[in-house]
Amino acid sequence: MPRRGRIGEFELIARYFAPLAKGFAGAGGLKSDNAFLSVDRRHDLAIKTDMMVAGVHFLTDEKPAVVAAKALRVCLSDLAAGGAVPFTYQLALSLQKNWSERWIAGFARGLAADQRRYDVVLSGGDTTATPGPTTVSITAFGRVPRGKGLGRIGARAGDELWVSGTIGDGALGLLAAQGRFDSAALERRYRLPQPRTTLGPRLIGVASATADVSDGLLADAGHIAEASRLAVHIERNDVPLSRAARAFVDASPTLWGPVLGGGDDYELVIAVPPRRRARLMAAARAAGVTVTRIGGFRRGRGVHLTIDGKEARVPRKGYVHF
Amino acid sequence: MPRRGRIGEFELIARYFAPLAKGFAGAGGLKSDNAFLSVDRRHDLAIKTDMMVAGVHFLTDEKPAVVAAKALRVCLSDLAAGGAVPFTYQLALSLQKNWSERWIAGFARGLAADQRRYDVVLSGGDTTATPGPTTVSITAFGRVPRGKGLGRIGARAGDELWVSGTIGDGALGLLAAQGRFDSAALERRYRLPQPRTTLGPRLIGVASATADVSDGLLADAGHIAEASRLAVHIERNDVPLSRAARAFVDASPTLWGPVLGGGDDYELVIAVPPRRRARLMAAARAAGVTVTRIGGFRRGRGVHLTIDGKEARVPRKGYVHF
Repeated sequence: MPRRGRIGEFELIARYFAPLAKGFAGAGGLKSDNAFLSVDRRHDLAIKTDMMVAGVHFLTDEKPAVVAAKALRVCLSDLAAGGAVPFTYQLALSLQKNWSERWIAGFARGLAADQRRYDVVLSGGDTTATPGPTTVSITAFGRVPRGKGLGRIGARAGDELWVSGTIGDGALGLLAAQGRFDSAALERRYRLPQPRTTLGPRLIGVASATADVSDGLLADAGHIAEASRLAVHIERNDVPLSRAARAFVDASPTLWGPVLGGGDDYELVIAVPPRRRARLMAAARAAGVTVTRIGGFRRGRGVHLTIDGKEARVPRKGYVHF
Repeated sequence: MPRRGRIGEFELIARYFAPLAKGFAGAGGLKSDNAFLSVDRRHDLAIKTDMMVAGVHFLTDEKPAVVAAKALRVCLSDLAAGGAVPFTYQLALSLQKNWSERWIAGFARGLAADQRRYDVVLSGGDTTATPGPTTVSITAFGRVPRGKGLGRIGARAGDELWVSGTIGDGALGLLAAQGRFDSAALERRYRLPQPRTTLGPRLIGVASATADVSDGLLADAGHIAEASRLAVHIERNDVPLSRAARAFVDASPTLWGPVLGGGDDYELVIAVPPRRRARLMAAARAAGVTVTRIGGFRRGRGVHLTIDGKEARVPRKGYVHF
């Protein structure tokens, strides 16, 4: 049990907030990355809210443009997992007492650059002051073809598990940012997510379920398995690593822990029926993103890890928010 | 100039965030209470985000159910000003370190009660922890007939200025909550807004412009005037007061300052062409809300106050967020 008898984030949501979302079909019981809202005959609106606190979700001395970009991109990553094309966002910004206009200018510059990069535009929000740390909450909006939005629910036994890009750079980048070792490339990857906005919308009609890797590969693959009431299997040696991550893991195999268990990769984990494998490859090519098969789903429960086919211990849970 | 050469909330929005909303027609240059998003042939989606910080926007020892209700209701008040019928919301909740499950349970109970009261349902959000004060950000959604959403822009010279309910209870209630004087009724009014959700949607086709009274009567009437490029005139002795507020103001006329300048009334200020006066009265009757004519709009600029027809000094600006 956590100290002081407190409950974790997922339990808190399940116990107190999921009941409030009953009757909103598109909320998926608050178990998926996005809410889907029917808006017209052709589209649903995908909606994602994410909140970041200075000193908790980003370093207090982080550049304001990077803070802004990260806050927006973590939402865009969830929309991508939902298969949605983003187009606007709302911003709630609570500024620590000694904020400077220079900081705000940098923050706005970061948003402006990402608005061009991802073709989104601000539609409203709120600004206020706080005696605590600067806090940024973004609610981002995207469009998906009606009824086609992707989420954690929907994987079937026999589906393959694929992942985009490379895994572990986020967690190793955090260790680098903390000075545990030196890697500018990994540190940059941790500081500034690259959401898979080109891939996500192309997974509609291809993937049976998706999630973005924000809590860690094992945790997020596990979220799909749990929501789809299945077991998921991952072969560790099939997990794609960047050249930098590979070098660190080869030198210190204990780093497999943060690679598989850490978060902040903002890649997509994708459940795909074997018959749609060719369509997945075509989607990935069109998106300019590599995808790698790392396991699959079967009847049962839980997350199962193998190393060269031999059952291994699952190292640790994903990032714990509380 | 504010100390340290810092700019205020409105200037900050105008200088740094309004440019980010260019190209989003429904954002109204971030000058209106809501963003409007075209969704189908018959409806627009009205969207409002509001953020509240413990110790800034609500008392740190406030009951969690009241905190939840207030956070939701300030958004519903803006949606009402936009003429929108609310139906869902997203919740971002950042919990101070020593949060208790009991507090969360109360917070969720407050939301559940207001979900029934206002016929809305939670569709998603985010929860996290903060080393600072508990912070609540809500993004609420409502529907309006396409292109008919109300905002600060649209008043015409010759329009009358009307206000719903009574004014000043919010500001006097804050003074009561601070122990400056004793009034349970006013204190309750400050702690728990009663958004005009029954009136707002009935103002479509009746009002030419609207705002809710959150920054103070003079400030919010002034926002309509400024956005509509007009002057607004208010006759102080026509401003409707509750019996409790009337007694305090009669005893201490300096309290007209907070009554006219303070915020948190969550009434609606409404610009109405004289020819639609009968329709306004019918809308108010159907909504079960009183409305009172307190002035009007004319060519020019600024907020002009009279007392029994004689020009008077405008006491002070509305609530300053920074």
